[in-house]
Amino acid sequence: MEYDIKTHKREELIDITEYILQSIRKSNIKEGIVVVFTPHTTAALTINENADPSVKEDVLEFLNRKIPKECNIFTHLEGNSDAHIKSSLFGTSLNLIVSNGQLILGTWQGIYFCEFDGPRSRKFYVKIIRDNL
Amino acid sequence: MEYDIKTHKREELIDITEYILQSIRKSNIKEGIVVVFTPHTTAALTINENADPSVKEDVLEFLNRKIPKECNIFTHLEGNSDAHIKSSLFGTSLNLIVSNGQLILGTWQGIYFCEFDGPRSRKFYVKIIRDNL
Amino acid sequence: MEYDIKTHKREELIDITEYILQSIRKSNIKEGIVVVFTPHTTAALTINENADPSVKEDVLEFLNRKIPKECNIFTHLEGNSDAHIKSSLFGTSLNLIVSNGQLILGTWQGIYFCEFDGPRSRKFYVKIIRDNL
Repeated sequence: MEYDIKTHKREELIDITEYILQSIRKSNIKEGIVVVFTPHTTAALTINENADPSVKEDVLEFLNRKIPKECNIFTHLEGNSDAHIKSSLFGTSLNLIVSNGQLILGTWQGIYFCEFDGPRSRKFYVKIIRDNL
Repeated sequence: MEYDIKTHKREELIDITEYILQSIRKSNIKEGIVVVFTPHTTAALTINENADPSVKEDVLEFLNRKIPKECNIFTHLEGNSDAHIKSSLFGTSLNLIVSNGQLILGTWQGIYFCEFDGPRSRKFYVKIIRDNL
Repeated sequence: MEYDIKTHKREELIDITEYILQSIRKSNIKEGIVVVFTPHTTAALTINENADPSVKEDVLEFLNRKIPKECNIFTHLEGNSDAHIKSSLFGTSLNLIVSNGQLILGTWQGIYFCEFDGPRSRKFYVKIIRDNL
């Protein structure tokens, strides 16, 4: 399944858990795995706390302090090398497990699309693989 | 399969390779993949050297120097934003390959549960997907 | 499938996209996922920009500035703790999706083998799992 989202800031973590749950419900899968993939080089996917929004802010602020947009060692003319580095650090794919028809996800875990060079129109894909016991 | 482990320090890398090998033996799988997933937002999973324990120490010490627990930019009141950042950097899932009934793992590779805000009782899940050639 | 590559510098990103595409063509898969895995503790796999080579240079230069080979906190006698840390940060495996017989990959995405302690002879494995709808 393919999903489109719109980001609104240069850096932003957007909760996409509901899209993944929807894919799983549609597939009617009982046991298997889920792969989520984003086809961008200045974005990423991650799983982190979904309760206190200050965690998202601390993650983004910390990344910006350590990997600033303006950095005298960067040579890439587009000026977004920081976003490329963040993308490789967090990764562009996620693995999840489905068991007894339920996505295994911790109480405090949300699934996030990570925008590092927005605002833009972005995509991600969800593929569900059934366990063929 | 679901596994419970107990961590003993705030930061700790615990070798869980034997649990994964056990899951593979039980499943009797010949060809396929393994997904390992941990449902926590201040922990992670990684693969790294299993021989010299100084590698684990260097990894944890380096993370603590660069991502200190006390950091004046953090606003999250629980005081463990460093652990949330480390969790997203290392990731909460792993992918492995099984071929000819054997887990593909380098001579020096061990599979580690990464505790970043312990000590706590923690969980991880192992899902094995058979290749249906 | 198992692939051998030779790296030529201490740090280097080598485009392995063509090998993955070749594996997919050989498998004749229409729908499924691909797992790529490297069995080394001082190397990694990542997906990033394949167009302007300055991105690769910026990524490697940035990692070296932040995670220097010589660092007074490292105790591991082999002197390559930086490479072990980079390996855990980028990760030793990748997940990809195949849909309608095509690998889902962004226009600007290439798949890279990341050497962090070369030059060496290295390996990576590709496993393709069919979706058994």
